[in-house]
Amino acid sequence: SAPLFDRVTLIGIGLIGSSLSHAMRRAGLAGHIAGHARSERTRAKALELGLVQSIHDDPASAVRDADLVIICSPVGSYAEIGAAIRDHLKPGAILSDVGSVKQAVIRDLGPNLPDGVHLVPGHPIAGTEHSGPESGFATLFDGRWCILTPPPGTDAAAVEKMIRFWQACGSQVEVMEAGHHDKTLAITSHLPHLIAYTIVGTVADLEEATKSEVIKFSASGFRDFTRIAASDPVMWRDVFLNNRDAVLEMLGRFAEDLTALQRAIRWGEGDKLEALFTRTRAIRRGIIDAKQA
Amino acid sequence: SAPLFDRVTLIGIGLIGSSLSHAMRRAGLAGHIAGHARSERTRAKALELGLVQSIHDDPASAVRDADLVIICSPVGSYAEIGAAIRDHLKPGAILSDVGSVKQAVIRDLGPNLPDGVHLVPGHPIAGTEHSGPESGFATLFDGRWCILTPPPGTDAAAVEKMIRFWQACGSQVEVMEAGHHDKTLAITSHLPHLIAYTIVGTVADLEEATKSEVIKFSASGFRDFTRIAASDPVMWRDVFLNNRDAVLEMLGRFAEDLTALQRAIRWGEGDKLEALFTRTRAIRRGIIDAKQA
Ligand SMILES: NC(=O)c1ccc[n+]([C@@H]2O[C@H](COP(=O)([O-])OP(=O)(O)OC[C@H]3O[C@@H](n4cnc5c(N)ncnc54)[C@H](OP(=O)(O)O)[C@@H]3O)[C@@H](O)[C@H]2O)c1
Ligand SMILES: NC(=O)c1ccc[n+]([C@@H]2O[C@H](COP(=O)([O-])OP(=O)(O)OC[C@H]3O[C@@H](n4cnc5c(N)ncnc54)[C@H](OP(=O)(O)O)[C@@H]3O)[C@@H](O)[C@H]2O)c1
Repeated sequence: SAPLFDRVTLIGIGLIGSSLSHAMRRAGLAGHIAGHARSERTRAKALELGLVQSIHDDPASAVRDADLVIICSPVGSYAEIGAAIRDHLKPGAILSDVGSVKQAVIRDLGPNLPDGVHLVPGHPIAGTEHSGPESGFATLFDGRWCILTPPPGTDAAAVEKMIRFWQACGSQVEVMEAGHHDKTLAITSHLPHLIAYTIVGTVADLEEATKSEVIKFSASGFRDFTRIAASDPVMWRDVFLNNRDAVLEMLGRFAEDLTALQRAIRWGEGDKLEALFTRTRAIRRGIIDAKQA
Repeated sequence: SAPLFDRVTLIGIGLIGSSLSHAMRRAGLAGHIAGHARSERTRAKALELGLVQSIHDDPASAVRDADLVIICSPVGSYAEIGAAIRDHLKPGAILSDVGSVKQAVIRDLGPNLPDGVHLVPGHPIAGTEHSGPESGFATLFDGRWCILTPPPGTDAAAVEKMIRFWQACGSQVEVMEAGHHDKTLAITSHLPHLIAYTIVGTVADLEEATKSEVIKFSASGFRDFTRIAASDPVMWRDVFLNNRDAVLEMLGRFAEDLTALQRAIRWGEGDKLEALFTRTRAIRRGIIDAKQA
């Protein structure tokens, strides 16, 4: 059967871009995959690994004739990329992305889009702590959710096509409003990453001798935070800069709760500690039941 | 060859106690394993699973004639257990434990020990989020560190024997001062658990609709915190109550660092965020190089 899209362009070919290429080829979703990345190194690597059939030095030529363009770079680069490609998009093309925040994406890509180009932003809830074109794999999206946040009034057929696209990549798809996405992800993803970065930073500031012991005995809990905090610095910088209000709101709640626990420890209130530590188990059970553990 | 100990008694037969039984039997370390646990259910289960060869309703009869007694219950129960077994310990016996804090253990078990009984506290840096006699397995300690914290003046032969014991259970052993242990573990283990409990608690307080979405999209980071926060509530209550000063000290540093990050997000200081997120990667590399990832 014919591929879902004749020509797909990936702008940015790191963990997510390369995984999308693997998943698209596994499912035969694209007649041709074109690509653009910022550096010569990544562009050469993408071609060498067979992630793209054509590679382009500039984004404008990469998107020419594409039926689907997926931006897979850090969200801070979208405004510039949007300005570069906007006038070269084919009428009827779908412009999508994989960025971890969604209101800012609509703010940066939405205005001045040519008539007949459909903006369907997306966010696959799947990832690892690795980056770059070598780190992708075909099964990354299998069984994971992908959230689509089309602005009000988006062409229904375009949204439907992106739902089929992500399902064919192995995902379950949910459509929601961009602001709602940003609030939800602030607590499920952005705040956990911020906290992990903070505690690993606290350790990085300890004196050398202590630091090497922390590494030695990291298996007792700390280790898991370091994995989360090994994610790409630029990607995460851009997430926090572009989902500021929702992150600060959740961070405020977390800080209050932490202060309450601090107080309970200081005053030896064992019953309060035990009650909280018991209550949190229900959430874990929910995640196991939802098969997301 | 003869077992290292003729008779070993486990007080408390949960995750760690049952794993120790598996590991001891795998290595043939005990001629006889006796046990005591608080509830009838656990005592029956321990016998049924073959974790112990004899089970005792009271701790005093459980320790009779034992060459090695290992307390494997939450550290808040040690004072009571110590008082109950003290006068029934055999001369020459080693009294040890697996508790996650060590100064409080020496405070609660050390005084009034009969002459000729050797206190050699221990802490295996290994665990899971599961509890109870069914959750143990023989390989839990393989390749992991075990820290011993004998008080100054402890019989060297007794310490040496416990080093051999833990090595035979699969561990690497480190001997250190109890206060130093408590400071190190405050940052590698206790603070990470406290933070994980806090953020999962913050989510538990959200309205129902939001909570079910958090569970659905938990794979984006939050999931890892819920695993850590699924650990036994009583065990962790006792850890925080018994390592208060070291935990509050590290928590203070963490809270300061978090406030600085909050400020950087509020004021859009991308360079500060990126610099921190880059610096933390070195710690992760250290853990991978130390083969503790
Ligand atoms: N990692 C995750 O777990 C995850 C999960 C879900 C969504 N996301 C989102 O996916 C996107 C990409 O993340 P990733 O993990 O795949 O990152 P990555 O592995 O670091 O790859 C980023 C890619 O973007 C390219 N790029 C950066 N700036 C560019 C620009 N100005 N113009 C063109 N290309 C540019 C990079 O090119 P060079 O290699 O040449 O520098 C690289 O190919 C981000 O928006 C992120 O929020 C990530
Ligand atoms: N879990 C970890 O990751 C980990 C790692 C290293 C060290 N530790 C330390 O290991 C110890 C045990 O933890 P665990 O995870 O094995 O806990 P667990 O699975 O919850 O088991 C605790 C055991 O202690 C028994 N117990 C509780 N209070 C008692 C009392 N007053 N008298 C006699 N027995 C009592 C319980 O008996 P019932 O079943 O009858 O209630 C149960 O058999 C703790 O001190 C903890 O700090 C834990």
